[in-house]
Amino acid sequence: MELIYKQLLANELDSLEANLVESISSEIKLASEVSNHLVSSGGKRIRPVVCILIAKAFSYQGQDLIKLASSIELLHSATLIHDDVVDQSLIRRGKQSIHTKWDNAHGVLVGDFVYSKAFQLMASFENPKIIRTLANSTNRISEGEVLQLALKNREVLTEKEYFEIIDRKTAELFKSAALTAGILSSCSENQLSSLAKFATSLGISFQIQDDILDYFGNESLTGKRIGKDFEEGKFTLPVLIALKNMDSNERDIFLKLFENGEKESFPEVLQMLSTSNIREEIDKTFNYYSDICKEEIKGIPDNEYKTALEQIVSNLNSRLT
Amino acid sequence: MELIYKQLLANELDSLEANLVESISSEIKLASEVSNHLVSSGGKRIRPVVCILIAKAFSYQGQDLIKLASSIELLHSATLIHDDVVDQSLIRRGKQSIHTKWDNAHGVLVGDFVYSKAFQLMASFENPKIIRTLANSTNRISEGEVLQLALKNREVLTEKEYFEIIDRKTAELFKSAALTAGILSSCSENQLSSLAKFATSLGISFQIQDDILDYFGNESLTGKRIGKDFEEGKFTLPVLIALKNMDSNERDIFLKLFENGEKESFPEVLQMLSTSNIREEIDKTFNYYSDICKEEIKGIPDNEYKTALEQIVSNLNSRLT
Repeated sequence: MELIYKQLLANELDSLEANLVESISSEIKLASEVSNHLVSSGGKRIRPVVCILIAKAFSYQGQDLIKLASSIELLHSATLIHDDVVDQSLIRRGKQSIHTKWDNAHGVLVGDFVYSKAFQLMASFENPKIIRTLANSTNRISEGEVLQLALKNREVLTEKEYFEIIDRKTAELFKSAALTAGILSSCSENQLSSLAKFATSLGISFQIQDDILDYFGNESLTGKRIGKDFEEGKFTLPVLIALKNMDSNERDIFLKLFENGEKESFPEVLQMLSTSNIREEIDKTFNYYSDICKEEIKGIPDNEYKTALEQIVSNLNSRLT
Repeated sequence: MELIYKQLLANELDSLEANLVESISSEIKLASEVSNHLVSSGGKRIRPVVCILIAKAFSYQGQDLIKLASSIELLHSATLIHDDVVDQSLIRRGKQSIHTKWDNAHGVLVGDFVYSKAFQLMASFENPKIIRTLANSTNRISEGEVLQLALKNREVLTEKEYFEIIDRKTAELFKSAALTAGILSSCSENQLSSLAKFATSLGISFQIQDDILDYFGNESLTGKRIGKDFEEGKFTLPVLIALKNMDSNERDIFLKLFENGEKESFPEVLQMLSTSNIREEIDKTFNYYSDICKEEIKGIPDNEYKTALEQIVSNLNSRLT
């Protein structure tokens, strides 16, 4: 299904792509070249899309929207570059990751370059609230990364820890994308608070959906290989809920398979995750956040931009089945 | 020789240390713990010192000075953490570097955490010029890092490239330390321009001095082991000037020794660098920048803070002999 926003924001999305490339242009050619490898590799741009749709839903007419959306996407890009160095991931968006195509040094330093470009864009805003919101998010995201590192060698992650990590690593930037769009559009404090709740829940739903698809996704529909999180030994929501619903014998078997993370064990793991209890609880958790989105979106004025946002929310849901 | 500023700024330097520790405190204990390992390891704090002395010389009386000085030192600390990952340096300030004591992932992510804390401090300023000055510097520093990477595998660096790198990697943050101190103190555009020249030249002098001491320093006075740059194959000013002053035969011998970077060859390399021609040209280059400092410092009002700055400049010079 083609999402409405792609048509509705066709011009804005073109401007965004142009602005991203322009923002990472530099006298130092290597910096532009390497950062361009990731930035122009066509991510979903979901964070800037949320930012632009919200500002336009609130009738923002000024010149700063694309710049704001770019700074958010660049912040996201910088974290991806450093994430790939840290996880030593080989592939990003279907291409070699930066540290694979070049080396770790390029990953670290070009990640810093992209951060610095995001900060320059942020710093160019007149409204200090926008700058502070984004600076605080940068910090919360970075703390989320360190928290994940701190919990890396733990045998099992708790659900609380899982949500703390995804709240920081994923939902935080959704939140500030929405908040800064609202600030730009002169929203009231009440509206901002509602936008923050909407976008935080959207970010969490988005991450949960990603985690679910990694086990239960239809590869031919999503274009993404399943079983990656299992192979990397990542404790994601399906696993945490499964562990809660297993008796100690099943738990032992499951954890052993999980620890080894062998590709061949994936069908067995999937089988163990596919009981109705587990599937229901996963869906329930997803729906909890999805429902918050549907509730909080009510504060946004009715127009085609809001409809596009609603469709993003319901599309997350529909991709699960 | 005990420098005046240590007495003169005793209170401010105490506040700075306290503010640095407070700034990197975090709910995520690992983030505070790891960043504290570097931040509290007692660097020279030369950038914040320059910032504080300039603001006080211009009679700044407000509450924001320590916060500004901290943001500058944190920015510097973040670059050191990532530099150490990139260079895989084992030691920093006499202690294990972060990626050595922990691992690369900790170096990358805690470096990002320290950056984010610097940005939060910056973002808290009311004057957008301060935020923009620091954001631009962050970008120029990061571009300097990538430039250095781009030139890494070159057989020889040109003097122009050397100065481009140290202008960005070292002088830039001296410059913005001075500029933001001047902005905070409501300096005129002329004064700001003079402060920028003063601090840029101070940063370059500082780096040249560091490079000279690495060959000709007295270890018992400086406390620093000599020959490190040679072992790491770093093209620093003494080497670039030496190469210019050698005939092609000497050049070949020198470059071969330099390429191998073996500890035992250091005395021979030092011998080749110790001709009067080479020493004179190195001193001349240093003096060129040191003289700019002495000229531009004239724009600063006469008081004890200016005297302390003058002493920092002349002390750089005296350490050379």
